[in-house]
Amino acid sequence: MTDPLAARYGDPDARLGVLTDVLQLQLARRSVRRFTARDVTEDELAALVAAAQSAPTSSNLQAWSVIAVRDPRRRARLAALAGDQAFVAQAPLFLVWVADLSRARRLARRAGSPLDATDYLETSVIGFVDTALAAQNAVVAAASLGLGSVFVGAVRNHPEEIAAELGLPPHAVAAFGLAVGEPDPAERAGIKPRLPQRAVLHREVYDAEAADAHIPVYDERLAAYNRQFGLAGGWSDRVLARLRGPESMAGRHRLREVLDRLGLPSR
Amino acid sequence: MTDPLAARYGDPDARLGVLTDVLQLQLARRSVRRFTARDVTEDELAALVAAAQSAPTSSNLQAWSVIAVRDPRRRARLAALAGDQAFVAQAPLFLVWVADLSRARRLARRAGSPLDATDYLETSVIGFVDTALAAQNAVVAAASLGLGSVFVGAVRNHPEEIAAELGLPPHAVAAFGLAVGEPDPAERAGIKPRLPQRAVLHREVYDAEAADAHIPVYDERLAAYNRQFGLAGGWSDRVLARLRGPESMAGRHRLREVLDRLGLPSR
Repeated sequence: MTDPLAARYGDPDARLGVLTDVLQLQLARRSVRRFTARDVTEDELAALVAAAQSAPTSSNLQAWSVIAVRDPRRRARLAALAGDQAFVAQAPLFLVWVADLSRARRLARRAGSPLDATDYLETSVIGFVDTALAAQNAVVAAASLGLGSVFVGAVRNHPEEIAAELGLPPHAVAAFGLAVGEPDPAERAGIKPRLPQRAVLHREVYDAEAADAHIPVYDERLAAYNRQFGLAGGWSDRVLARLRGPESMAGRHRLREVLDRLGLPSR
Repeated sequence: MTDPLAARYGDPDARLGVLTDVLQLQLARRSVRRFTARDVTEDELAALVAAAQSAPTSSNLQAWSVIAVRDPRRRARLAALAGDQAFVAQAPLFLVWVADLSRARRLARRAGSPLDATDYLETSVIGFVDTALAAQNAVVAAASLGLGSVFVGAVRNHPEEIAAELGLPPHAVAAFGLAVGEPDPAERAGIKPRLPQRAVLHREVYDAEAADAHIPVYDERLAAYNRQFGLAGGWSDRVLARLRGPESMAGRHRLREVLDRLGLPSR
Protein backbone atom coordinates (compact mmCIF):
# COMPACT_ATOMS: atom_id res chain seq x y z
CA MET A 1 0.00 0.00 0.00
CA THR A 2 1.66 3.21 -1.09
CA ASP A 3 -1.20 5.62 -0.34
CA PRO A 4 -0.31 6.99 3.12
CA LEU A 5 -3.95 7.04 4.28
CA ALA A 6 -4.50 3.41 3.26
CA ALA A 7 -1.31 2.45 5.09
CA ARG A 8 -2.29 4.52 8.14
CA TYR A 9 -5.48 2.51 8.57
CA GLY A 10 -4.28 -0.77 7.03
CA ASP A 11 -7.33 -0.36 4.80
CA PRO A 12 -6.96 -0.04 1.03
CA ASP A 13 -10.42 1.57 0.86
CA ALA A 14 -9.64 4.44 3.27
CA ARG A 15 -10.33 7.83 1.66
CA LEU A 16 -10.14 11.47 2.69
CA GLY A 17 -12.35 14.11 1.10
CA VAL A 18 -9.82 16.90 1.69
CA LEU A 19 -6.07 16.78 1.61
CA THR A 20 -3.21 19.26 2.06
CA ASP A 21 0.56 18.92 1.82
CA VAL A 22 0.69 19.11 5.61
CA LEU A 23 -1.83 16.29 5.96
CA GLN A 24 0.17 14.18 3.48
CA LEU A 25 3.26 14.71 5.61
CA GLN A 26 1.41 13.85 8.84
CA LEU A 27 -0.28 10.74 7.44
CA ALA A 28 3.03 9.38 6.16
CA ARG A 29 4.85 9.81 9.50
CA ARG A 30 6.52 6.74 10.91
CA SER A 31 8.96 6.20 13.74
CA VAL A 32 12.56 6.30 12.50
CA ARG A 33 15.08 4.31 14.53
CA ARG A 34 18.03 4.14 12.11
CA PHE A 35 19.85 7.25 11.03
CA THR A 36 22.59 8.21 8.60
CA ALA A 37 25.85 9.72 9.86
CA ARG A 38 24.85 13.27 8.87
CA ASP A 39 24.48 15.71 11.76
CA VAL A 40 21.37 17.71 12.48
CA THR A 41 22.54 21.27 11.85
CA GLU A 42 22.25 24.11 14.33
CA ASP A 43 19.85 25.82 11.91
CA GLU A 44 17.64 22.74 11.89
CA LEU A 45 17.71 22.52 15.68
CA ALA A 46 16.70 26.19 15.95
CA ALA A 47 13.79 25.55 13.57
CA LEU A 48 12.58 22.56 15.62
CA VAL A 49 12.62 24.60 18.81
CA ALA A 50 10.87 27.57 17.14
CA ALA A 51 8.14 25.19 15.93
CA ALA A 52 7.87 23.71 19.43
CA GLN A 53 7.54 27.16 20.97
CA SER A 54 4.78 27.98 18.47
CA ALA A 55 2.52 25.27 19.87
CA PRO A 56 -0.24 26.33 22.27
CA THR A 57 0.65 26.39 25.96
CA SER A 58 -1.70 26.55 28.94
CA SER A 59 -2.08 30.19 30.10
CA ASN A 60 1.20 30.92 28.26
CA LEU A 61 3.04 29.23 31.15
CA GLN A 62 5.48 27.55 28.70
CA ALA A 63 6.06 24.89 31.33
CA TRP A 64 8.76 23.01 29.46
CA SER A 65 12.41 23.07 28.46
CA VAL A 66 14.39 20.99 26.01
CA ILE A 67 17.95 19.72 26.29
CA ALA A 68 19.85 19.06 23.07
CA VAL A 69 22.29 16.20 23.61
CA ARG A 70 24.92 15.71 20.92
CA ASP A 71 27.82 14.33 23.00
CA PRO A 72 28.08 10.64 22.01
CA ARG A 73 29.18 9.57 25.49
CA ARG A 74 26.19 11.25 27.09
CA ARG A 75 23.90 9.72 24.46
CA ALA A 76 25.34 6.30 25.25
CA ARG A 77 24.69 6.81 28.97
CA LEU A 78 21.15 8.01 28.26
CA ALA A 79 20.57 5.00 25.99
CA ALA A 80 21.58 2.68 28.82
CA LEU A 81 19.17 4.44 31.21
CA ALA A 82 16.33 4.44 28.66
CA GLY A 83 15.73 0.75 28.11
CA ASP A 84 19.04 0.10 26.35
CA GLN A 85 17.69 1.35 23.06
CA ALA A 86 20.66 1.56 20.72
CA PHE A 87 19.16 4.23 18.47
CA VAL A 88 19.41 6.76 21.32
CA ALA A 89 23.18 6.43 21.06
CA GLN A 90 23.14 6.17 17.27
CA ALA A 91 20.99 9.24 16.49
CA PRO A 92 23.10 12.37 15.94
CA LEU A 93 20.74 14.43 18.13
CA PHE A 94 18.79 13.38 21.20
CA LEU A 95 16.31 15.92 22.49
CA VAL A 96 15.15 15.48 26.07
CA TRP A 97 11.83 17.23 26.61
CA VAL A 98 11.45 18.38 30.18
CA ALA A 99 8.20 19.13 32.02
CA ASP A 100 9.58 22.17 33.77
CA LEU A 101 7.96 23.88 36.74
CA SER A 102 11.37 24.97 37.99
CA ARG A 103 11.42 28.16 35.93
CA ALA A 104 8.24 29.37 37.61
CA ARG A 105 9.53 28.25 41.00
CA ARG A 106 12.69 30.30 40.48
CA LEU A 107 10.59 33.34 39.46
CA ALA A 108 8.58 32.94 42.66
CA ARG A 109 11.67 32.57 44.83
CA ARG A 110 13.22 35.72 43.38
CA ALA A 111 9.95 37.62 43.83
CA GLY A 112 9.32 36.21 47.32
CA SER A 113 5.87 35.06 46.14
CA PRO A 114 3.95 31.88 46.97
CA LEU A 115 3.54 29.37 44.13
CA ASP A 116 1.44 26.75 45.83
CA ALA A 117 -0.39 25.65 42.67
CA THR A 118 2.77 23.79 41.68
CA ASP A 119 2.13 21.32 44.51
CA TYR A 120 -0.92 19.91 42.73
CA LEU A 121 -1.23 17.11 40.17
CA GLU A 122 -3.08 19.52 37.86
CA THR A 123 0.07 21.61 37.42
CA SER A 124 2.20 18.57 36.63
CA VAL A 125 -0.43 17.58 34.06
CA ILE A 126 -0.09 21.06 32.53
CA GLY A 127 3.66 20.48 32.39
CA PHE A 128 3.36 17.12 30.61
CA VAL A 129 0.66 18.37 28.21
CA ASP A 130 2.55 21.59 27.35
CA THR A 131 5.67 19.51 26.74
CA ALA A 132 3.83 17.09 24.47
CA LEU A 133 2.17 19.82 22.39
CA ALA A 134 5.55 21.46 21.85
CA ALA A 135 7.38 18.23 21.03
CA GLN A 136 4.76 17.12 18.51
CA ASN A 137 5.19 20.40 16.64
CA ALA A 138 8.92 19.64 16.52
CA VAL A 139 8.21 16.18 15.12
CA VAL A 140 6.16 17.63 12.26
CA ALA A 141 8.71 20.39 11.64
CA ALA A 142 11.47 17.76 11.52
CA ALA A 143 9.54 15.74 8.94
CA SER A 144 9.15 18.85 6.80
CA LEU A 145 12.95 19.20 6.86
CA GLY A 146 13.43 15.58 5.81
CA LEU A 147 14.43 14.48 9.32
CA GLY A 148 13.08 11.38 11.04
CA SER A 149 12.42 10.94 14.72
CA VAL A 150 11.12 8.60 17.40
CA PHE A 151 9.87 9.33 20.89
CA VAL A 152 11.52 7.60 23.84
CA GLY A 153 9.15 7.28 26.80
CA ALA A 154 11.72 5.06 28.50
CA VAL A 155 13.45 8.15 29.92
CA ARG A 156 10.76 7.68 32.59
CA ASN A 157 12.20 4.26 33.51
CA HIS A 158 14.88 5.96 35.65
CA PRO A 159 13.84 9.62 35.99
CA GLU A 160 16.20 10.40 38.88
CA GLU A 161 19.28 9.08 37.09
CA ILE A 162 18.25 10.95 33.92
CA ALA A 163 17.78 14.14 35.97
CA ALA A 164 21.25 13.72 37.45
CA GLU A 165 22.83 13.08 34.03
CA LEU A 166 21.24 16.25 32.62
CA GLY A 167 21.75 18.41 35.70
CA LEU A 168 18.04 19.08 36.04
CA PRO A 169 17.09 21.41 38.89
CA PRO A 170 14.34 20.47 41.36
CA HIS A 171 10.78 20.73 39.97
CA ALA A 172 11.76 19.47 36.50
CA VAL A 173 11.47 15.96 35.04
CA ALA A 174 12.33 14.40 31.69
CA ALA A 175 8.93 13.68 30.14
CA PHE A 176 10.26 11.83 27.09
CA GLY A 177 13.15 11.87 24.65
CA LEU A 178 13.15 12.36 20.89
CA ALA A 179 15.88 10.85 18.75
CA VAL A 180 16.33 12.94 15.58
CA GLY A 181 18.35 12.43 12.44
CA GLU A 182 18.35 11.78 8.73
CA PRO A 183 16.48 8.51 8.11
CA ASP A 184 18.67 5.64 6.97
CA PRO A 185 17.02 4.45 3.74
CA ALA A 186 18.11 0.90 4.61
CA GLU A 187 15.79 0.78 7.64
CA ARG A 188 13.01 -1.71 7.15
CA ALA A 189 9.95 -0.08 8.68
CA GLY A 190 6.46 0.97 7.72
CA ILE A 191 3.57 3.22 8.61
CA LYS A 192 1.90 1.43 11.51
CA PRO A 193 -1.86 1.09 11.06
CA ARG A 194 -4.07 2.76 13.65
CA LEU A 195 -7.52 1.93 14.97
CA PRO A 196 -10.35 2.61 12.51
CA GLN A 197 -11.49 6.18 12.87
CA ARG A 198 -14.89 5.08 14.16
CA ALA A 199 -13.17 3.35 17.09
CA VAL A 200 -11.83 6.67 18.44
CA LEU A 201 -14.24 9.34 17.11
CA HIS A 202 -17.55 9.75 18.92
CA ARG A 203 -20.47 12.04 18.06
CA GLU A 204 -21.98 14.22 20.81
CA VAL A 205 -21.61 11.48 23.43
CA TYR A 206 -19.29 8.53 24.00
CA ASP A 207 -20.59 5.24 22.58
CA ALA A 208 -18.36 2.41 23.82
CA GLU A 209 -20.23 -0.41 22.12
CA ALA A 210 -20.27 1.22 18.67
CA ALA A 211 -16.59 2.18 18.96
CA ASP A 212 -15.32 -1.19 20.21
CA ALA A 213 -17.12 -3.02 17.39
CA HIS A 214 -14.25 -1.84 15.18
CA ILE A 215 -11.50 -3.44 17.25
CA PRO A 216 -11.63 -6.99 15.79
CA VAL A 217 -10.98 -5.82 12.23
CA TYR A 218 -8.11 -3.71 13.54
CA ASP A 219 -6.61 -6.72 15.32
CA GLU A 220 -6.57 -8.48 11.95
CA ARG A 221 -5.06 -5.50 10.12
CA LEU A 222 -2.32 -5.02 12.71
CA ALA A 223 -1.57 -8.75 12.75
CA ALA A 224 -1.14 -8.63 8.96
CA TYR A 225 1.18 -5.62 9.32
CA ASN A 226 3.18 -7.32 12.08
CA ARG A 227 3.61 -10.47 9.99
CA GLN A 228 5.51 -8.43 7.37
CA PHE A 229 8.15 -7.85 10.04
CA GLY A 230 8.13 -11.42 11.31
CA LEU A 231 6.12 -10.53 14.40
CA ALA A 232 3.09 -12.41 15.67
CA GLY A 233 -0.09 -11.06 17.21
CA GLY A 234 -2.54 -8.19 16.84
CA TRP A 235 -3.37 -5.16 18.94
CA SER A 236 -5.52 -6.33 21.82
CA ASP A 237 -3.04 -8.95 23.02
CA ARG A 238 -0.24 -6.36 23.06
CA VAL A 239 -2.29 -3.83 25.00
CA LEU A 240 -3.13 -6.49 27.58
CA ALA A 241 0.52 -7.52 27.88
CA ARG A 242 1.78 -3.92 28.09
CA LEU A 243 -0.68 -2.91 30.81
CA ARG A 244 -0.82 -6.21 32.67
CA GLY A 245 0.66 -4.87 35.90
CA PRO A 246 3.61 -3.18 37.58
CA GLU A 247 5.93 -5.92 36.29
CA SER A 248 5.17 -4.79 32.70
CA MET A 249 6.05 -1.14 33.37
CA ALA A 250 9.88 -1.19 33.34
CA GLY A 251 10.04 0.57 36.69
CA ARG A 252 7.61 3.31 35.79
CA HIS A 253 5.05 2.18 38.39
CA ARG A 254 7.21 4.29 40.73
CA LEU A 255 6.52 7.51 38.82
CA ARG A 256 4.36 9.11 41.48
CA GLU A 257 6.89 8.69 44.27
CA VAL A 258 9.75 9.71 41.95
CA LEU A 259 7.89 12.89 40.96
CA ASP A 260 7.44 13.63 44.67
CA ARG A 261 11.18 13.34 45.20
CA LEU A 262 11.97 15.44 42.09
CA GLY A 263 9.75 18.24 43.39
CA LEU A 264 6.64 17.66 41.30
CA PRO A 265 4.23 16.47 43.97
CA SER A 266 0.81 15.03 43.09
CA ARG A 267 -1.27 16.66 45.77
CA MET B 1 5.86 42.93 12.57
CA THR B 2 4.61 40.81 9.69
CA ASP B 3 7.39 38.20 9.67
CA PRO B 4 5.93 35.29 11.67
CA LEU B 5 9.24 34.45 13.33
CA ALA B 6 9.78 38.06 14.44
CA ALA B 7 6.24 38.12 15.83
CA ARG B 8 6.72 34.74 17.52
CA TYR B 9 9.62 36.06 19.55
CA GLY B 10 8.58 39.72 19.68
CA ASP B 11 12.03 40.33 18.23
CA PRO B 12 12.45 42.02 14.83
CA ASP B 13 15.94 40.51 14.55
CA ALA B 14 14.87 36.87 14.95
CA ARG B 15 16.06 34.77 12.00
CA LEU B 16 15.87 31.11 10.96
CA GLY B 17 18.50 29.55 8.71
CA VAL B 18 16.05 26.98 7.30
CA LEU B 19 12.38 27.34 6.53
CA THR B 20 9.63 25.15 5.09
CA ASP B 21 5.96 25.78 4.31
CA VAL B 22 5.10 23.67 7.37
CA LEU B 23 7.34 25.79 9.60
CA GLN B 24 5.76 28.97 8.21
CA LEU B 25 2.34 27.59 9.11
CA GLN B 26 3.47 26.58 12.60
CA LEU B 27 5.24 29.86 13.36
CA ALA B 28 2.17 31.87 12.32
CA ARG B 29 -0.26 29.91 14.52
CA ARG B 30 -2.34 31.91 16.95
CA SER B 31 -5.32 31.05 19.12
CA VAL B 32 -8.59 31.80 17.30
CA ARG B 33 -11.57 32.61 19.52
CA ARG B 34 -13.98 34.15 16.99
CA PHE B 35 -15.37 32.14 14.14
CA THR B 36 -17.53 32.71 11.07
CA ALA B 37 -20.87 30.95 10.70
CA ARG B 38 -19.51 28.36 8.26
CA ASP B 39 -19.59 24.77 9.50
CA VAL B 40 -16.57 22.52 9.71
CA THR B 41 -17.40 19.84 7.12
CA GLU B 42 -17.45 16.12 7.80
CA ASP B 43 -14.52 15.75 5.39
CA GLU B 44 -12.51 18.28 7.39
CA LEU B 45 -13.36 16.54 10.67
CA ALA B 46 -12.23 13.20 9.22
CA ALA B 47 -8.95 14.80 8.13
CA LEU B 48 -8.33 16.26 11.60
CA VAL B 49 -8.88 12.88 13.22
CA ALA B 50 -6.68 11.09 10.66
CA ALA B 51 -3.91 13.59 11.41
CA ALA B 52 -4.42 13.06 15.14
CA GLN B 53 -4.20 9.29 14.73
CA SER B 54 -0.96 9.70 12.76
CA ALA B 55 0.83 11.19 15.78
CA PRO B 56 3.10 8.91 17.78
CA THR B 57 1.50 7.01 20.67
CA SER B 58 3.22 5.22 23.54
CA SER B 59 3.55 1.48 22.72
CA ASN B 60 0.74 1.99 20.16
CA LEU B 61 -1.71 2.07 23.07
CA GLN B 62 -3.69 4.89 21.41
CA ALA B 63 -4.95 5.86 24.85
CA TRP B 64 -7.33 8.58 23.70
CA SER B 65 -10.69 9.25 22.11
CA VAL B 66 -12.26 12.39 20.73
CA ILE B 67 -15.86 13.55 20.91
CA ALA B 68 -17.13 15.86 18.17
CA VAL B 69 -19.77 18.16 19.61
CA ARG B 70 -21.84 20.11 17.09
CA ASP B 71 -25.17 20.38 18.96
CA PRO B 72 -25.43 24.07 19.95
CA ARG B 73 -27.26 23.28 23.19
CA ARG B 74 -24.55 20.85 24.27
CA ARG B 75 -21.87 23.37 23.30
CA ALA B 76 -23.64 25.98 25.43
CA ARG B 77 -23.71 23.62 28.41
CA LEU B 78 -20.03 22.75 27.90
CA ALA B 79 -19.19 26.46 27.65
CA ALA B 80 -20.86 27.06 31.01
CA LEU B 81 -18.88 24.20 32.58
CA ALA B 82 -15.60 25.33 31.00
CA GLY B 83 -15.11 28.75 32.54
CA ASP B 84 -18.05 30.39 30.76
CA GLN B 85 -15.98 30.93 27.65
CA ALA B 86 -18.42 32.11 24.98
CA PHE B 87 -16.34 30.88 22.03
CA VAL B 88 -17.02 27.27 23.07
CA ALA B 89 -20.68 27.90 22.27
CA GLN B 90 -19.89 30.05 19.24
CA ALA B 91 -17.47 27.70 17.45
CA PRO B 92 -19.25 25.41 14.98
CA LEU B 93 -17.27 22.40 16.24
CA PHE B 94 -16.03 21.64 19.72
CA LEU B 95 -13.71 18.64 19.99
CA VAL B 96 -13.31 17.12 23.45
CA TRP B 97 -10.07 15.17 23.67
CA VAL B 98 -10.35 12.34 26.14
CA ALA B 99 -7.50 10.58 27.95
CA ASP B 100 -9.03 7.14 27.58
CA LEU B 101 -7.94 4.08 29.50
CA SER B 102 -11.47 2.69 29.31
CA ARG B 103 -10.94 1.00 25.94
CA ALA B 104 -8.09 -1.07 27.37
CA ARG B 105 -10.09 -1.77 30.53
CA ARG B 106 -12.97 -3.10 28.40
CA LEU B 107 -10.54 -5.30 26.42
CA ALA B 108 -9.24 -6.71 29.70
CA ARG B 109 -12.72 -7.32 31.08
CA ARG B 110 -13.76 -9.18 27.94
CA ALA B 111 -10.54 -11.23 28.01
CA GLY B 112 -10.70 -11.85 31.77
CA SER B 113 -7.15 -10.45 32.07
CA PRO B 114 -5.63 -8.25 34.77
CA LEU B 115 -4.80 -4.67 33.76
CA ASP B 116 -3.22 -3.41 36.95
CA ALA B 117 -0.85 -0.95 35.22
CA THR B 118 -3.86 1.32 34.71
CA ASP B 119 -3.93 1.98 38.47
CA TYR B 120 -0.66 3.91 38.30
CA LEU B 121 -0.01 7.61 37.67
CA GLU B 122 2.40 6.62 34.86
CA THR B 123 -0.48 5.22 32.81
CA SER B 124 -2.58 8.36 33.27
CA VAL B 125 0.45 10.38 32.15
CA ILE B 126 0.61 8.19 29.03
CA GLY B 127 -3.07 8.97 28.45
CA PHE B 128 -2.58 12.75 28.75
CA VAL B 129 0.59 12.74 26.64
CA ASP B 130 -0.91 10.53 23.90
CA THR B 131 -3.95 12.80 23.83
CA ALA B 132 -1.83 15.95 23.53
CA LEU B 133 0.37 14.56 20.74
CA ALA B 134 -2.75 13.61 18.78
CA ALA B 135 -4.56 16.91 19.37
CA GLN B 136 -1.55 19.01 18.36
CA ASN B 137 -1.42 17.17 15.03
CA ALA B 138 -5.10 18.08 14.57
CA VAL B 139 -4.31 21.75 15.32
CA VAL B 140 -1.65 21.84 12.59
CA ALA B 141 -3.88 19.94 10.15
CA ALA B 142 -6.70 22.41 10.84
CA ALA B 143 -4.42 25.36 10.11
CA SER B 144 -3.42 23.75 6.80
CA LEU B 145 -7.15 23.63 5.92
CA GLY B 146 -7.61 27.30 6.80
CA LEU B 147 -9.34 26.52 10.09
CA GLY B 148 -8.53 28.23 13.37
CA SER B 149 -8.64 26.68 16.82
CA VAL B 150 -8.03 27.24 20.50
CA PHE B 151 -7.46 24.76 23.31
CA VAL B 152 -9.76 24.83 26.33
CA GLY B 153 -8.06 23.44 29.44
CA ALA B 154 -11.03 24.63 31.48
CA VAL B 155 -12.83 21.34 30.75
CA ARG B 156 -10.75 20.23 33.75
CA ASN B 157 -12.54 22.78 35.98
CA HIS B 158 -15.49 20.37 36.37
CA PRO B 159 -14.34 17.00 34.99
CA GLU B 160 -17.17 14.99 36.55
CA GLU B 161 -19.90 17.19 35.11
CA ILE B 162 -18.17 17.16 31.71
CA ALA B 163 -17.94 13.35 31.88
CA ALA B 164 -21.66 13.15 32.65
CA GLU B 165 -22.56 15.52 29.80
CA LEU B 166 -20.55 13.44 27.33
CA GLY B 167 -21.55 10.05 28.69
CA LEU B 168 -17.94 9.10 29.39
CA PRO B 169 -17.44 5.59 30.76
CA PRO B 170 -15.28 5.00 33.85
CA HIS B 171 -11.51 5.27 33.25
CA ALA B 172 -11.85 8.18 30.81
CA VAL B 173 -11.48 11.92 31.44
CA ALA B 174 -11.73 15.02 29.26
CA ALA B 175 -8.13 16.25 29.00
CA PHE B 176 -8.94 19.47 27.13
CA GLY B 177 -11.29 20.84 24.50
CA LEU B 178 -10.49 22.35 21.11
CA ALA B 179 -12.83 24.89 19.55
CA VAL B 180 -12.52 24.74 15.75
CA GLY B 181 -13.91 26.89 12.96
CA GLU B 182 -13.19 29.34 10.21
CA PRO B 183 -11.43 32.36 11.72
CA ASP B 184 -13.51 35.53 11.80
CA PRO B 185 -11.31 38.10 10.04
CA ALA B 186 -12.76 40.75 12.38
CA GLU B 187 -11.11 39.19 15.42
CA ARG B 188 -8.41 41.42 16.86
CA ALA B 189 -5.62 39.08 17.90
CA GLY B 190 -1.96 38.48 17.25
CA ILE B 191 0.81 35.93 17.41
CA LYS B 192 1.77 35.90 21.08
CA PRO B 193 5.52 36.21 21.63
CA ARG B 194 7.25 33.33 23.38
CA LEU B 195 10.33 33.16 25.59
CA PRO B 196 13.62 33.68 23.75
CA GLN B 197 14.87 30.37 22.44
CA ARG B 198 17.87 30.50 24.77
CA ALA B 199 15.51 30.55 27.76
CA VAL B 200 14.12 27.09 26.93
CA LEU B 201 16.88 25.34 24.93
CA HIS B 202 19.79 23.89 26.89
CA ARG B 203 22.96 22.20 25.59
CA GLU B 204 23.99 18.85 27.06
CA VAL B 205 22.94 19.87 30.59
CA TYR B 206 20.40 22.23 32.11
CA ASP B 207 21.78 25.71 32.86
CA ALA B 208 19.21 27.64 34.90
CA GLU B 209 21.20 30.81 35.28
CA ALA B 210 22.02 31.18 31.58
CA ALA B 211 18.42 30.42 30.60
CA ASP B 212 16.74 32.71 33.11
CA ALA B 213 18.96 35.63 32.06
CA HIS B 214 16.66 35.93 29.03
CA ILE B 215 13.45 36.39 31.03
CA PRO B 216 13.69 40.17 31.66
CA VAL B 217 13.82 41.03 27.95
CA TYR B 218 10.86 38.70 27.40
CA ASP B 219 8.89 40.44 30.12
CA GLU B 220 9.43 43.70 28.21
CA ARG B 221 8.46 42.16 24.86
CA LEU B 222 5.30 40.57 26.22
CA ALA B 223 4.36 43.80 28.01
CA ALA B 224 4.69 45.65 24.69
CA TYR B 225 2.52 43.01 23.00
CA ASN B 226 -0.09 43.16 25.77
CA ARG B 227 -0.25 46.97 25.55
CA GLN B 228 -1.47 46.65 21.94
CA PHE B 229 -4.57 44.95 23.35
CA GLY B 230 -5.01 47.37 26.24
CA LEU B 231 -3.59 44.90 28.77
CA ALA B 232 -0.99 45.70 31.40
CA GLY B 233 1.91 43.57 32.63
CA GLY B 234 4.50 41.16 31.33
CA TRP B 235 5.08 37.46 31.70
CA SER B 236 6.56 36.86 35.15
CA ASP B 237 3.73 38.63 36.98
CA ARG B 238 1.13 36.54 35.15
CA VAL B 239 2.90 33.27 35.88
CA LEU B 240 3.05 34.18 39.56
CA ALA B 241 -0.65 35.12 39.61
CA ARG B 242 -1.73 31.99 37.71
CA LEU B 243 0.21 29.60 39.95
CA ARG B 244 -0.21 31.47 43.22
CA GLY B 245 -2.22 28.75 44.94
CA PRO B 246 -5.36 26.61 44.88
CA GLU B 247 -7.51 29.75 44.75
CA SER B 248 -5.99 30.58 41.33
CA MET B 249 -6.79 27.14 39.85
CA ALA B 250 -10.54 27.42 39.08
CA GLY B 251 -11.26 24.20 40.95
CA ARG B 252 -8.53 22.17 39.30
CA HIS B 253 -6.62 21.69 42.56
CA ARG B 254 -9.09 18.81 43.02
CA LEU B 255 -7.86 16.97 39.91
CA ARG B 256 -6.18 14.12 41.72
CA GLU B 257 -9.24 13.18 43.77
CA VAL B 258 -11.51 13.66 40.75
CA LEU B 259 -9.33 11.33 38.67
CA ASP B 260 -9.57 8.78 41.49
CA ARG B 261 -13.36 8.96 41.32
CA LEU B 262 -13.40 8.78 37.51
CA GLY B 263 -11.33 5.59 37.59
CA LEU B 264 -7.89 7.00 36.76
CA PRO B 265 -6.13 6.50 40.08
CA SER B 266 -2.70 8.01 40.75
CA ARG B 267 -1.09 5.14 42.57
